[in-house]
Amino acid sequence: MSGEVQKGLEGVVVGESQLSYINGDEGRLIYRGHEIETLAEHATYEEVLYLLWHGSLPTESELAEFTATMAEERAVDDEVLGTLADLAAADEAPMAALRTAVSMLSASDPEPDAAPDDQAATLRQGRRITAKVPTILAAYQRLRDGEEPLSPKEDLSHAGNFLYMLTGEEPDDVAEETLDMALILHADHGLNASTFASMVIASTLADTYAAVTGGVGALSGPLHGGANQDVMETLLEVDDSSKDPVQWVKDAIDDGRKIPGFGHRVYNVKDPRAVILEEKSRDLGDASGERKWYDHANEIEQYLVEEAGFAEKGLAPNVDFYSGTVYYQLGIPVDMFTPIFAMSRVGGWVAHVIEQLGDNRIFRPRAKYTGAKEAEWTPVEDR
Amino acid sequence: MSGEVQKGLEGVVVGESQLSYINGDEGRLIYRGHEIETLAEHATYEEVLYLLWHGSLPTESELAEFTATMAEERAVDDEVLGTLADLAAADEAPMAALRTAVSMLSASDPEPDAAPDDQAATLRQGRRITAKVPTILAAYQRLRDGEEPLSPKEDLSHAGNFLYMLTGEEPDDVAEETLDMALILHADHGLNASTFASMVIASTLADTYAAVTGGVGALSGPLHGGANQDVMETLLEVDDSSKDPVQWVKDAIDDGRKIPGFGHRVYNVKDPRAVILEEKSRDLGDASGERKWYDHANEIEQYLVEEAGFAEKGLAPNVDFYSGTVYYQLGIPVDMFTPIFAMSRVGGWVAHVIEQLGDNRIFRPRAKYTGAKEAEWTPVEDR
Repeated sequence: MSGEVQKGLEGVVVGESQLSYINGDEGRLIYRGHEIETLAEHATYEEVLYLLWHGSLPTESELAEFTATMAEERAVDDEVLGTLADLAAADEAPMAALRTAVSMLSASDPEPDAAPDDQAATLRQGRRITAKVPTILAAYQRLRDGEEPLSPKEDLSHAGNFLYMLTGEEPDDVAEETLDMALILHADHGLNASTFASMVIASTLADTYAAVTGGVGALSGPLHGGANQDVMETLLEVDDSSKDPVQWVKDAIDDGRKIPGFGHRVYNVKDPRAVILEEKSRDLGDASGERKWYDHANEIEQYLVEEAGFAEKGLAPNVDFYSGTVYYQLGIPVDMFTPIFAMSRVGGWVAHVIEQLGDNRIFRPRAKYTGAKEAEWTPVEDR
Repeated sequence: MSGEVQKGLEGVVVGESQLSYINGDEGRLIYRGHEIETLAEHATYEEVLYLLWHGSLPTESELAEFTATMAEERAVDDEVLGTLADLAAADEAPMAALRTAVSMLSASDPEPDAAPDDQAATLRQGRRITAKVPTILAAYQRLRDGEEPLSPKEDLSHAGNFLYMLTGEEPDDVAEETLDMALILHADHGLNASTFASMVIASTLADTYAAVTGGVGALSGPLHGGANQDVMETLLEVDDSSKDPVQWVKDAIDDGRKIPGFGHRVYNVKDPRAVILEEKSRDLGDASGERKWYDHANEIEQYLVEEAGFAEKGLAPNVDFYSGTVYYQLGIPVDMFTPIFAMSRVGGWVAHVIEQLGDNRIFRPRAKYTGAKEAEWTPVEDR
């Protein structure tokens, strides 16, 4: 190992993983060998969680038991709801509220004495957290709106129950399937910063709550999880301007603005998740008769990629470019987009934590020291 | 960069730093050029925070202003105390309670709209968190004991006020100076796992609360922050056994037990912090007339290093080997030892976050994919 500085750890391989594989030149993403397109079309989010956490697709009875167990684990304590109410009163950002609430969940874990390197216990803790994240988010949204949180319904799917708890109405099939698919698409994506943060924390044998809390914290950063919200805010601004979207984006670039939702460190071509979400965004627009969000995004994409030279620079739409328009058309508030990313990615954090514990070594890199090697001490009164 | 797996990132240089330098062969630790022995003897913890965060030692007036500002920022909201009371009722571990409370502090930050890469705002946020950690910890300890939390006193030092809030009595000079020195010794130590976790989180431009919450989570792991508690529990077990400490440790090794507090990835000789804490532990014993905790530890060290071959293996006492006996002699409960480590190291986390923002690149390493590249999809009913 040379002493060269590996900034951002780009290209540095920190471990082996059997979870997800990205081919950035082909625009290919697989989870444990299954193409993301196949999973998006055929699987449920619960089935994908099982695949990631247990290593293979569940049988019918395994899936039924897994889904039922997760459904039973959805409720959160009154103490967590009380803290969320305090945070809502203080106008806390949803990702920060989620971070605090996930951290607080450890107090009611039924296995507080599980050995820290017990992978099976970690899976159960991770399952409980994953089951409760939608409950926390929906409760927080309702508390912010001055409404009482709703109790989860065990007979609904993970995605369907979230939409029910958020809106108070059971969603139609299109809405439920669309959110379910979005959750599948965001569940895992190699060693992104939030997943890596979870792994670093877990490498000290801190528990799953500590690791996932760190993942939520990392995802809250605007360079990571915030881009889907940025894209939607941009599209809303385009719409408000009443300009032609292409003209708007030309003007924005002239003004030195960066257009969010393009480019990704690991893709040189269009993100395969963006391809799927683009189609879903168009379908939702066609179904509602209001296609403008898809159209705005699509026109901007065509212009940037084909005329503004983005293709030559390897800048293509990433997952965030169309996900925002999908969530918006589902009626989800814009500042809940990143929390929905978290509601999905928690599955990946837990999977990587389990994998880390299977072959653990604490992360302890080095810094190149560039400061003073010798400094003279002067008593404060003589400085 | 080869594709070789860099497990635990051992020896991998992830960035430049001007904060602390460790020479593991000489047993030397410096903060910005100042030897740890000099700082332990002459500085206060507040002065060391200023040095780490601002880059140089403060003048008398700078230090007075900095100390006064931090003292004013000690109080925490009733909402945080309410959540701590809930956690105490649920018998939550102190490090988990600290993690939740630190996360919750963001809701009352007076600068919620600070730009995420604003280093000066990060310093102020970090200062507020650092000021409040002792208040959280002392409140939690009192709540666990069924007592009301005490309000901080602004006229006491950071260390002295913590001891006051914990016990209800203003500490004597020896206790205050001893804790202050322990805080200095633990304030920074290169890119240990908790510091690195904070940096990974901050690299997404998540805020200081997210980064520090992740640091607390990482430090809670038994491979990282828990060893000082493990050492004290071992010494208590030695004492309870009524065996000669050397005989006890021989028997323990025969039973296959690992003796905590020895060895460190970056030191091949005795940790310089252990040298200072050993002396302090002996002084406290001499002052109280009860030297057995120092004596037990010292006899075990002599045996392991000189007779049991630890020296040949590069295993020497690390910072945790004597810190536990120091805290114990100050009357601090054993499960508060790791939180006290956090109360000090938060200064280092904040310093590294500020430094990361000065030359930021998001951390996004890679994993070597060893899973299936192609898997066949079978509908669940056919599995």
